[in-house]
Amino acid sequence: MASLGAELTGVEPGACEIRLPYQAGLSQQHGYFHAGALSAIADSAGGYAAYTLMEADESVLAVEFKVNLLAPARGDIGDAAVARARVVRSGRTLTVCQIEVFVERDGQETLCALMQQTVIRMAGRPDTA
Amino acid sequence: MASLGAELTGVEPGACEIRLPYQAGLSQQHGYFHAGALSAIADSAGGYAAYTLMEADESVLAVEFKVNLLAPARGDIGDAAVARARVVRSGRTLTVCQIEVFVERDGQETLCALMQQTVIRMAGRPDTA
Amino acid sequence: MASLGAELTGVEPGACEIRLPYQAGLSQQHGYFHAGALSAIADSAGGYAAYTLMEADESVLAVEFKVNLLAPARGDIGDAAVARARVVRSGRTLTVCQIEVFVERDGQETLCALMQQTVIRMAGRPDTA
Amino acid sequence: MASLGAELTGVEPGACEIRLPYQAGLSQQHGYFHAGALSAIADSAGGYAAYTLMEADESVLAVEFKVNLLAPARGDIGDAAVARARVVRSGRTLTVCQIEVFVERDGQETLCALMQQTVIRMAGRPDTA
Repeated sequence: MASLGAELTGVEPGACEIRLPYQAGLSQQHGYFHAGALSAIADSAGGYAAYTLMEADESVLAVEFKVNLLAPARGDIGDAAVARARVVRSGRTLTVCQIEVFVERDGQETLCALMQQTVIRMAGRPDTA
Repeated sequence: MASLGAELTGVEPGACEIRLPYQAGLSQQHGYFHAGALSAIADSAGGYAAYTLMEADESVLAVEFKVNLLAPARGDIGDAAVARARVVRSGRTLTVCQIEVFVERDGQETLCALMQQTVIRMAGRPDTA
Repeated sequence: MASLGAELTGVEPGACEIRLPYQAGLSQQHGYFHAGALSAIADSAGGYAAYTLMEADESVLAVEFKVNLLAPARGDIGDAAVARARVVRSGRTLTVCQIEVFVERDGQETLCALMQQTVIRMAGRPDTA
Repeated sequence: MASLGAELTGVEPGACEIRLPYQAGLSQQHGYFHAGALSAIADSAGGYAAYTLMEADESVLAVEFKVNLLAPARGDIGDAAVARARVVRSGRTLTVCQIEVFVERDGQETLCALMQQTVIRMAGRPDTA
């Protein structure tokens, strides 16, 4: 995330927000945020939201996610992208998160991606990052 | 893709291969390739595979994708990641692709991600990149 | 849907609710609602929610969906399953819906499935069902 | 599956085939196989393929799946639907399957749905069905 220029802008139990200011290198051929960049911050936000509910000696790893990219023509050209994740179900082994990604432009937010993600609990494996 | 350091290593009608040499900035906390980087090259490979079947005045845009991240402990630490996409169904409006991502390590490949992707045809909108 | 015994219990612009009373034939080996039945009512609810925003000469067809099945042990044994769909983005060609499926048991609801679905607009093809 | 009229037509380690003869009740408004029926046999075939790799005291449960419905106009009106599943990765906790669903018509098969599915191993919980 650091290499993308993303920053953690909010975290509480079961929720997380990550913000990615616009950079030229992250756009794709039409001038939008690249789907890969939007997915990367959504995936990270979901993983972090899940991690807030783990014990001290546990970490998390995403096992799968699905993302819908919404209306690029209207939304994805912007000043920043903001991913907001919340845990929908926290199970013993698997946690399911839902993540919305908004593009900010002149102070207004437009929903531009929607993700469902599954994360696995890694017991006895604290996060050392 | 260029900003990630990825390169197009193969393309034919309905198929595409993209290779991403390992870089420190692309790893996540456990030392694997970050899911976001694997997804980004898979998404790009699928989009490109779909694009090979378009007319001159058409371009493509991914509308959604789903990726399963497979067995990171065994596969994702490597010298490079290689995404291989093929078009499963090319329709009038939508194209469905399947993309496999392998991690190369000491000349051996391990499947580390599997993606299903839907791409939309953008008629009358040539790709100007 | 009729063959499953499902009924339409709510509809408004961009939203739909479908209810499936429990039947023995819909359960799977552990005694829960079968994932296929939960997916079927979720898919139908999403398609119907999208359809409420179409013109008179248009119909809809689901092009893909992804569903997470949540905590079966706690939720899916019940008196009925209820799918509630809402349109997240209605585009010119594609509509994206989100559908929650709850299991009702003794008057209490438990979220048991979460779906993201993409639906395509079929112009000039009214629904004749 | 029995209530749908589906039958198990093939099984080997890591693979499974389920066949669903056409029945009027399974179609949707345009006369195709209903996406819910196609998804149900795909989900069951994947679960069974995963189950072939389990130990005697283990069972499986699908945790999520994603399905693309391909070109209904050309393929889904048929004599039977056939789901063929194979295990892509069998892990300690999670198994990932890929399932193709074909529609048979006059002896010819057309690919009509493609699924990626994640299944969880239920240790110490033999299947009693």
